[in-house]
Amino acid sequence: MPTIDPQTIRQGDRLALSRAMTLVENDAPESREVQAALFPHTGKAHLVGVTGAPGTGKSTLVNQLTKLLRNNPDQGTDPKVAIIAVDPTSPFTGGALLGDRIRMRDLAGDRGIFIRSMASRGALGGLAHKTAAFVTLLDGAGFDIIIIETVGAGQAEVDIAGLAHTVIVVEAPGLGDDIQAIKAGILEIADIIVVNKADHPGADNSVRALRVMLEMTQGKHNSGTAKAHHKVTLQPDSSKTNQPDSVSWKTPILPVISTEGKGINTLVDEIQNHAKFLKDNQLWQQKEAARLRKDLEALIRHKLVRKWQQTLDENKFDSVFADVIERKCSPIEAVDLLL
Amino acid sequence: MPTIDPQTIRQGDRLALSRAMTLVENDAPESREVQAALFPHTGKAHLVGVTGAPGTGKSTLVNQLTKLLRNNPDQGTDPKVAIIAVDPTSPFTGGALLGDRIRMRDLAGDRGIFIRSMASRGALGGLAHKTAAFVTLLDGAGFDIIIIETVGAGQAEVDIAGLAHTVIVVEAPGLGDDIQAIKAGILEIADIIVVNKADHPGADNSVRALRVMLEMTQGKHNSGTAKAHHKVTLQPDSSKTNQPDSVSWKTPILPVISTEGKGINTLVDEIQNHAKFLKDNQLWQQKEAARLRKDLEALIRHKLVRKWQQTLDENKFDSVFADVIERKCSPIEAVDLLL
Repeated sequence: MPTIDPQTIRQGDRLALSRAMTLVENDAPESREVQAALFPHTGKAHLVGVTGAPGTGKSTLVNQLTKLLRNNPDQGTDPKVAIIAVDPTSPFTGGALLGDRIRMRDLAGDRGIFIRSMASRGALGGLAHKTAAFVTLLDGAGFDIIIIETVGAGQAEVDIAGLAHTVIVVEAPGLGDDIQAIKAGILEIADIIVVNKADHPGADNSVRALRVMLEMTQGKHNSGTAKAHHKVTLQPDSSKTNQPDSVSWKTPILPVISTEGKGINTLVDEIQNHAKFLKDNQLWQQKEAARLRKDLEALIRHKLVRKWQQTLDENKFDSVFADVIERKCSPIEAVDLLL
Repeated sequence: MPTIDPQTIRQGDRLALSRAMTLVENDAPESREVQAALFPHTGKAHLVGVTGAPGTGKSTLVNQLTKLLRNNPDQGTDPKVAIIAVDPTSPFTGGALLGDRIRMRDLAGDRGIFIRSMASRGALGGLAHKTAAFVTLLDGAGFDIIIIETVGAGQAEVDIAGLAHTVIVVEAPGLGDDIQAIKAGILEIADIIVVNKADHPGADNSVRALRVMLEMTQGKHNSGTAKAHHKVTLQPDSSKTNQPDSVSWKTPILPVISTEGKGINTLVDEIQNHAKFLKDNQLWQQKEAARLRKDLEALIRHKLVRKWQQTLDENKFDSVFADVIERKCSPIEAVDLLL
């Protein structure tokens, strides 16, 4: 494999970008040089996370959203859009690859759009880290909007979507009762809630129920029992007068019919409103810092384990582990023997 | 908090058991002593994982299954059953706690049943580790069957359910198309597939579709493109003649109506068949070893990070991180400076 010149990625070479992403997926050491070279040029892209339970129609929504972002008549700009589709449960076939093909047909030919999916199993921490690396590459390649779509609705997927500046949670009517269990956790990270399939029966009820749940969640935030996410108290900005001590984003709930493209324009507006809100209130930088810190900590953990593995006496490990299997030594005691 | 005598847990003191679990949840150092003391007495329980997408009715299924396991007329035994309900997305309210209350009403009063939920957010690796610790405590306390139920259907939940000897994947008809994306990954870990809500329209189709997907997955296994899970090639056992070189478990697909208790008896039979299959083919010990190894590795990672944190110069960290935020130094370069 030839080494990749980061400069060509900055100049828009899609093949070099794809290759760099493959290096990241394969954990190749060369990927680090490319990332390090691009890193000084990052920090410009708007990261938009899209998550929600299976069956809510996220992929169709993301496709329609991407098309409108590219062809927005209200804007003079011509933003480049990248999509990272993260599918942690699909090991080799199925969702991601099938989704890719459908997408290619739908969005192909527009060189302002770049799509990459990651169907990687078994490497959970690695998945969040690889998503972060993809973001660095795409941001460095000059993509203005990077959509991070996750297929599942577990904690890992929520964490990955949570890397974004703006998190869109997609719901749909009639997905069964115990989805309520998921919602409480997922609503907390939502900056925008989309009720997709708004023409299906029960959509009005879903919107109403979500509004109530959202009020409960935000009520909890305000009473200080959880990390404030929607509401952030800041020092008054000296450059403006009459600004309240506390700024808050009111999470909109948007009915959408993705298959017909209905409601997508409002979604685009709210995404832009949210970016403006973050920037106006110095929250953009806060989110960037939190994201970089998480990534740095994950890299440190990764390296610590690798260093330990390099010095490990495998015979000793095997003999201690044999005692664990025979229940002579608990895993907790084994750690003390091995470190 | 008084120290807990592990002996009282072995003798069936439920309050001591609950307290020990709380110590685990709080990462209290005392929890390690209790686990180490109980560990030599573990390895007897049958661990049954239950996972599947939201909306499939897992909780109702687990309740009905537990009742029948306790009151199985076909058996002379009287197994003690524990349920660990893991809800990684529920931060403080919602699913797990509500589910608990419904469960308490349904299963309360039977001292052969113990229920504990874990609604813990943000500590993913920690979650799998804490589930393993709960298993040690419950196994040491003499529970014969430990059901590990996960609420979400992401990779983390699949990993947690995968700790079990027997993995039940729950599906339901009519949950939308892109659930197909989830299935390919999740079917791989299934030892038993339940199609719940079998009285709903489309149930027959679901069973048929699952059978086809399963055959595709197992076909892939057989052609060697993925880790064999259902099919394990063993050396011929010298104590038996005419045993084939290769033993395989044929994953059954069981239509069930949990709300009416229909099909649960067949499920109980298949759970017992699977345990027998594992034991007859020396796979039980293999699964135990794999589980203990995973737990040991997680403990090692955890301790490595803690050791590093204890020696960390925080001023240095802050100054390096400030350079990362200003894009003067990439996270990858920062790691080299910090380790």
